[in-house]
Amino acid sequence: MASFVRTIPEGDDRERLTCADCGFVAYENPKIVVGSVVAVDGQVMLCRRAIEPRRGFWTLPAGYMEMAETVEEGARREAWEEARARIALEGVLAVYSIARIGQVQVIFRAGLAEPGFEAGPESLEVRLFDWAEIPWGEIAFPSVHWALRRWRESLGAPLGAPATNPPEDARGTSPMEGSAL
Amino acid sequence: MASFVRTIPEGDDRERLTCADCGFVAYENPKIVVGSVVAVDGQVMLCRRAIEPRRGFWTLPAGYMEMAETVEEGARREAWEEARARIALEGVLAVYSIARIGQVQVIFRAGLAEPGFEAGPESLEVRLFDWAEIPWGEIAFPSVHWALRRWRESLGAPLGAPATNPPEDARGTSPMEGSAL
Repeated sequence: MASFVRTIPEGDDRERLTCADCGFVAYENPKIVVGSVVAVDGQVMLCRRAIEPRRGFWTLPAGYMEMAETVEEGARREAWEEARARIALEGVLAVYSIARIGQVQVIFRAGLAEPGFEAGPESLEVRLFDWAEIPWGEIAFPSVHWALRRWRESLGAPLGAPATNPPEDARGTSPMEGSAL
Repeated sequence: MASFVRTIPEGDDRERLTCADCGFVAYENPKIVVGSVVAVDGQVMLCRRAIEPRRGFWTLPAGYMEMAETVEEGARREAWEEARARIALEGVLAVYSIARIGQVQVIFRAGLAEPGFEAGPESLEVRLFDWAEIPWGEIAFPSVHWALRRWRESLGAPLGAPATNPPEDARGTSPMEGSAL
């Protein structure tokens, strides 16, 4: 492991982690988690984690967003990786901040685009639950509770207008888009 | 500058940028921009950029989210830094992905929490514009166009239910929250 020191890089206004050996500035940015509450005939899909942390506990199909994908593509990828499900996104259900660990979660409401699902390599089991059956005591993370409650509330009201990229640049690949605001 | 090579770290499934000198894995994650369409009596606030890229062009008060803050705190911080404005957030207006550059933008609809604003160090000028006055030819980035149009559309309809952390853990600091989903 390299030895990192905290120092203020030239032109910056706060300390950043910098490698004392090579000078690399490891900007620590919040990481984005993308995921979905996937519902089928009123039941919600949960995945029992095959990996730490919280192995054996239930979670949503969700995970870290990768470079060069959109939030929508990331949410669909995670549903495939964890639940072998092809999902159709309905809209943004919630945006959660986990400030303590520098994480932002963008959670969609979704359904299945094609029938069928099964455990991917990071899941022990994937199941649909009636609301009354959800194993609240075995949920992996508080934000899964939040998203499930929010999903339940959202059923009685519209999610609001679609709030993602306009169709003419759905992937944000316009060469005009700047690298910083 | 260190010499970085692309290699698949142990336990990972894709190539990551790794420092050949010190072994540091520079995970490249999408970066989060937080910003707001701030309206005052039906006029929208724009900031004329004092910095590159797009110096002299108009943008929203927005910028990179920092660690240990929530999306809401980041949006309020940016409005203060760029427009010396204390803003009150009304809800998430849009979530945009700029896949080409690995960026996700969380844009809020907001008003002023206190009267007054002025150019911060990264702005040449901060102004309120009537819709008909907006200098469309001098807007810094396509996503500013998107957000302004979305703001305009949102005025006729609710933004949808609030979709951020629940009040009991507004900053995501519960020690139970896991570090990965």
